[in-house]
Amino acid sequence: MTGNTEKIIKKYIAGVGRADEKAMIASKEYDDALIKPPRSLGKLEDIAIKLAGITGRVKNRIGSKKILVFCADNGVTKEGVASAPISVTASQAVNMTSGITGMSALAKHFGVEVAVVDVGVATKFPLTVDGKKAPIIDKKIRKGTGNIACEPAMSRDECLCAILTGIEIAIGREDEEEYEDINLVGIGEMGIGNTTTSAAVLSAITGVDSDSLTGRGAGISDEAYDNKKKVIKRALFTHKLEGQGCEYAGDFEAITDVLSKVGGLDIAAMCGAFIGAAYAGKGAVIDGYISAVAALLAVKLCPAVADYLFPSHVSTEPGYMLAMKELGLSSYLDLNMGLGEGSGCVLAFEVIEGACAMMNNMATFEGGGIDDSYLEGIR
Amino acid sequence: MTGNTEKIIKKYIAGVGRADEKAMIASKEYDDALIKPPRSLGKLEDIAIKLAGITGRVKNRIGSKKILVFCADNGVTKEGVASAPISVTASQAVNMTSGITGMSALAKHFGVEVAVVDVGVATKFPLTVDGKKAPIIDKKIRKGTGNIACEPAMSRDECLCAILTGIEIAIGREDEEEYEDINLVGIGEMGIGNTTTSAAVLSAITGVDSDSLTGRGAGISDEAYDNKKKVIKRALFTHKLEGQGCEYAGDFEAITDVLSKVGGLDIAAMCGAFIGAAYAGKGAVIDGYISAVAALLAVKLCPAVADYLFPSHVSTEPGYMLAMKELGLSSYLDLNMGLGEGSGCVLAFEVIEGACAMMNNMATFEGGGIDDSYLEGIR
Repeated sequence: MTGNTEKIIKKYIAGVGRADEKAMIASKEYDDALIKPPRSLGKLEDIAIKLAGITGRVKNRIGSKKILVFCADNGVTKEGVASAPISVTASQAVNMTSGITGMSALAKHFGVEVAVVDVGVATKFPLTVDGKKAPIIDKKIRKGTGNIACEPAMSRDECLCAILTGIEIAIGREDEEEYEDINLVGIGEMGIGNTTTSAAVLSAITGVDSDSLTGRGAGISDEAYDNKKKVIKRALFTHKLEGQGCEYAGDFEAITDVLSKVGGLDIAAMCGAFIGAAYAGKGAVIDGYISAVAALLAVKLCPAVADYLFPSHVSTEPGYMLAMKELGLSSYLDLNMGLGEGSGCVLAFEVIEGACAMMNNMATFEGGGIDDSYLEGIR
Repeated sequence: MTGNTEKIIKKYIAGVGRADEKAMIASKEYDDALIKPPRSLGKLEDIAIKLAGITGRVKNRIGSKKILVFCADNGVTKEGVASAPISVTASQAVNMTSGITGMSALAKHFGVEVAVVDVGVATKFPLTVDGKKAPIIDKKIRKGTGNIACEPAMSRDECLCAILTGIEIAIGREDEEEYEDINLVGIGEMGIGNTTTSAAVLSAITGVDSDSLTGRGAGISDEAYDNKKKVIKRALFTHKLEGQGCEYAGDFEAITDVLSKVGGLDIAAMCGAFIGAAYAGKGAVIDGYISAVAALLAVKLCPAVADYLFPSHVSTEPGYMLAMKELGLSSYLDLNMGLGEGSGCVLAFEVIEGACAMMNNMATFEGGGIDDSYLEGIR
């Protein structure tokens, strides 16, 4: 079974196409001809050029906008690392389907679709506030992970299964691909305890001391914060992943080993989702800390994924900036947000829409009746 | 005439109401009850509370979204401080009415109205690309300002007239006020040379050395940049405004004196627009450097304006951060943009929409089926 899953994942990884460099050059040339001082629309210009790399077209329009939320519980919550009880994972997953959580409230307003995927929720889903069964996509691999402080989070089999689930969910239905427009997916999560697993994974992968990557998650006391740091150190020690940070790029074995030992089903599925989105030619938007760590793993597994990635907002979690630095990305929004769920992606979709509007609606110097000879000296 | 204009402006200043503190407290309480970790939606929460202060209601919806662009030329361009010829002010003003500039391309996409106001354009407006007369609101006070390096930008009369024009434009039509929803205005500009005048005004008002507030505007060579710094220093010396930075707050005489001597018709009208927006109970969104300096002047003239201000994006001009610090605001977007026109405001409108969606769509712990007893320890 593992062998087969691994083979399928590797087939998808090999199938991610690199950006169309010719289209990017053409896009940059067109951007430079727009009636504005060179580079004065900054990151909107970077976005437009990146979109061209994905679609092969200079001008693009956004097709569907969708948030994929991967939900799972993390056994490490037994160590008291999180403020909320694990039942919150299940109840918020349900609430997301009703459009009443932070991300889904935004998604409703901006016309963004939400898909909530259970890859490992430990407790029973309550009914929705309307008394109905919530439309959660059931891809449960196991009921929560093991406690990483003393045991592996999951088996290698389970880890590969979570990655493949993420890939397939992000690829989605074939009919989505019929449009010329580019579809965007934002990759979010719900899983009490997952800032702990993210810090452990990021420390293992980069070799950076985990204390500097550990934040207060949804909010914990000073005492609980100290404990959280110790638990992460213990997990890294237990699994012999301290001070590693060797060259993981392309090392499928090593990366899935880290994920299996100190990761989570949510992170693994999200990592897969970034690969799947890229495979399907969709723009993949990173949310906060957990999402950024998952994106980094996806790029380590498959460098071409980088061509499809868009950041969204600066997370309040301290490890976020390291993940962004590793990815070579700089966020669009700075809102002091640390909610997760994919909440930042919803707002980033609007920024990406703005980049398309710039390319589609602006005139060029030739068409705008402006003498641009003065630009020669500063270009 | 001056006496009368001054009287009218002061009547508006006195008429700006302070934020409704009771509504803000109620808004904060409601926000704290939403199903999310406390403060995890960061600045969206700040925005929601500020909107409550303006409208007196906990839940708000955005009514109209409008960009007001004040266009004027600056005599200091004679000193070679700008890369573009002054004819660009007139041609871009025209292009803005066609939706083909950076800001207006965004505005078109996001359903934002644009009003282009001529308060002092020096050259003739060309026809639109379609060969029509552009619908620019004619409030021309004079054809460009004097060269601040050796003469006052304008007379006190002209300055007051520009401020009043801005106030009245921002107040707009009476019928806009019939809605319960809150209207937003973004305050932008088009005026070759106005990063020079903005740096001079900001230095005069704060006492901070002008070199540190001087950027490259739309892009200039190293040589031209050095010259730009020297020209600003010369202007401040000429008008005896070096190293001032005394307490300008509430000092109508001193502030309008600085504006008349080293400011511009665009900055003066924008300063008025911030006051007018606040007077009319509208949310006033700051764009980049020039807009931030104008907002700071408005707050110095009328402290209550601060209750109506929303930032948008971090401008690439170095003086921007000082203006934000003085205003106590922190931007939502970080896009390396330095275009002006009100381009950042268009995107900030979406962030403000998001804050409304948060309040209007999210459930509270009571209604969301989540046990929030765990929050007691961290609130």
